Amino acid sequence: MNAAIITIGDEILIGQIVDTNSAWIAENLSLLGINITEIRSIPDKREQIIRTLKEFNQSVDLVIISGGLGPTSDDITKASLNEYFGGQMLEAPEVLNHIIDLFNKRGFVLSETNRLQAIIPDNCIVLRNPSGTAPGMWFEKANTIFVSLPGVPFEMKDIFMLDLLPRLTERINGAMIYHRTVMTQGLPESFLAAKIKSWEESLPENVKLAYLPRPGIVRLRLTAMGTTKNELEQLLQIEIDKLHKIIPKHIFSFRDEALEEVVGRLLKNYGMTLCTAESCTGGRIANLITSVPGSSAYFRGAIVAYDNEIKMNELSVEESVLLNLGAVSDKVVEQMAEGVRKKFNCDYGIGVSGIAGPSGGSLEKPVGTTWIAISSTKKTVSKMFNLGEHRGRNIEKASINALNMLRVIILEG
Amino acid sequence: MNAAIITIGDEILIGQIVDTNSAWIAENLSLLGINITEIRSIPDKREQIIRTLKEFNQSVDLVIISGGLGPTSDDITKASLNEYFGGQMLEAPEVLNHIIDLFNKRGFVLSETNRLQAIIPDNCIVLRNPSGTAPGMWFEKANTIFVSLPGVPFEMKDIFMLDLLPRLTERINGAMIYHRTVMTQGLPESFLAAKIKSWEESLPENVKLAYLPRPGIVRLRLTAMGTTKNELEQLLQIEIDKLHKIIPKHIFSFRDEALEEVVGRLLKNYGMTLCTAESCTGGRIANLITSVPGSSAYFRGAIVAYDNEIKMNELSVEESVLLNLGAVSDKVVEQMAEGVRKKFNCDYGIGVSGIAGPSGGSLEKPVGTTWIAISSTKKTVSKMFNLGEHRGRNIEKASINALNMLRVIILEG
Repeated sequence: MNAAIITIGDEILIGQIVDTNSAWIAENLSLLGINITEIRSIPDKREQIIRTLKEFNQSVDLVIISGGLGPTSDDITKASLNEYFGGQMLEAPEVLNHIIDLFNKRGFVLSETNRLQAIIPDNCIVLRNPSGTAPGMWFEKANTIFVSLPGVPFEMKDIFMLDLLPRLTERINGAMIYHRTVMTQGLPESFLAAKIKSWEESLPENVKLAYLPRPGIVRLRLTAMGTTKNELEQLLQIEIDKLHKIIPKHIFSFRDEALEEVVGRLLKNYGMTLCTAESCTGGRIANLITSVPGSSAYFRGAIVAYDNEIKMNELSVEESVLLNLGAVSDKVVEQMAEGVRKKFNCDYGIGVSGIAGPSGGSLEKPVGTTWIAISSTKKTVSKMFNLGEHRGRNIEKASINALNMLRVIILEG
Repeated sequence: MNAAIITIGDEILIGQIVDTNSAWIAENLSLLGINITEIRSIPDKREQIIRTLKEFNQSVDLVIISGGLGPTSDDITKASLNEYFGGQMLEAPEVLNHIIDLFNKRGFVLSETNRLQAIIPDNCIVLRNPSGTAPGMWFEKANTIFVSLPGVPFEMKDIFMLDLLPRLTERINGAMIYHRTVMTQGLPESFLAAKIKSWEESLPENVKLAYLPRPGIVRLRLTAMGTTKNELEQLLQIEIDKLHKIIPKHIFSFRDEALEEVVGRLLKNYGMTLCTAESCTGGRIANLITSVPGSSAYFRGAIVAYDNEIKMNELSVEESVLLNLGAVSDKVVEQMAEGVRKKFNCDYGIGVSGIAGPSGGSLEKPVGTTWIAISSTKKTVSKMFNLGEHRGRNIEKASINALNMLRVIILEG
């Protein structure tokens, strides 16, 4: 089955919002074995919406549309869909009742604008929106399925999971595509590519490899094409086992998940606790760790010591060390990691200090110079990283490197 | 001038990466008055790349392509471009010299893969890439300009700003589009829409309004079309002044900038310092504040008190208060905010505690219940928010609401 994704909204075309919906939809369609041929963002323009629907009606089996269903006046998707599919706009009682329920639950008064959300084309199947007022809509025309979803990400996702996914699963058939992702840390893309070159060249013809870098991490995606899921699963497992032998230390997961999830699971399984002492990362490591549900089982807290006084008063970093070596040094991060671990009575402590930029660099310690320490009850180790010149990327890479250092140390013992 | 944006990469079509490049490119083209008619993501497939180039060659004046120029084998953009524009692939000495320089500076050894980056079509203008090995390429065919940029965001941005922007500015002409953005906090989209309905309905015909919600914030974008920038600037200023009178408290900026930038500027201008005590937000507020360059001038540090013991030991929260009212209560966040402010000797302290979810909720305090306090040397105030059921959104909304509470209090006092 071939599919296209359309996002509708002037705000996307002038770059005021990043289209995250398409990636989410694409990922979830891919997991069903659906092949996405194109993602397209178009403005809130009637003619262009209709022209695009027409074009995809001829080239794909499924079109998922998101955006343009809000209650405000700049959204014209619904009227354009109704025109293309030739229905009539009527108030749908099931949708209206749902909207009334929703407002009652939240204790809000229903406005006229909200009530308009219940007026929809009469020739679509309504997909329930548990978390908002705009329903999803399922149309069919000349062997193509068209699904329209709201642009608000959590509403779109809720409708997709609750009502769309079961319907789509029923319809799936045709050639199978199977993906596996291997998560690597610590090797930049070109170094990784050189290291796994001969493995890559020996991959079977129906297996494709892609390098997907993001700050501090390279994801390797293997895609196999064939007829049965079983056969493809086995094929990719063999190749992944070979890969694992080449770069065992750099792989932190065999599925697409965040490093903070992997670290969290390890801590939970071993019954260990963690805390952080952060300078340049400014709380980002704590933020990553606590983004995982249930992290309170292993994460106790953090001290963001942006100021050197806080490093001394709260983390027992020695003034003489700060003066002699500077805040970005091995001894300082070691004392930070140890200091927070002892203070918060944890099994592991992370300490990070670096020059995030854009200013603050020197010839000796340019922007991007970052020291990271991990302290456990057995030992405290530290390592220096050169992370480049971009503040946002520095903070992100420092956080990821700290989490991976911790991961390796937890596994060692 | 009409433009289209293409991003190339299988990884986008299966949703493994979010296409953030398009939004950035779209925003920067819009600022030049260029009208973006479409954003399209396509896979690493020769035929589809060429078909898409052909299509846009007929419909727009400018095409910006990003992605598919990496050194690894899944990238075929360069060969497809060369085929479409009918050039010859040759090693460009200027590019090779730049690559060699770059590797010398970083102390890395040049690999064969890296050297391949210097082989490019001979009929393009090279756009310099100060931060990477893949150059940008500028082609022209039948009155359309095509620009190919690498997919790595910071490389793409560096080429765009350094070399592409000056060249494009030279070429611009035609009808003018002018945007202004007003940032609002504290009113959900439908409430905001109801409140400013009559203003919206009285907008001049050549002015469009769009609502751009994100967690805790709604951006209002006004777009005016006309012939001179001056005239459009004045027109929008008049409308924005009217809007300001309707929702004075809810507007935190008259340009598209983050709340943490606005708060940072206020603190800096008033010579005030800030610290945070965070439970459910897990360091996100500190992370937002320190994402702004220069934040060390006003931000001293944070205590992430995920554990109640840390709330008591570090922030002087009373055990009796925790036992009687629970960690998610007015008294606890007030003591947290005061505790951290006094401990870190700051002018302002933020305290946040809530039930981020997915578990931990009760009938009395459902998931999303969040207390936020701001403590200054004059007073400590707190407020309760109901932020919904999604963990990630809860953390984000709590952080944004805390920053806006702080902003209002700084301005008052």
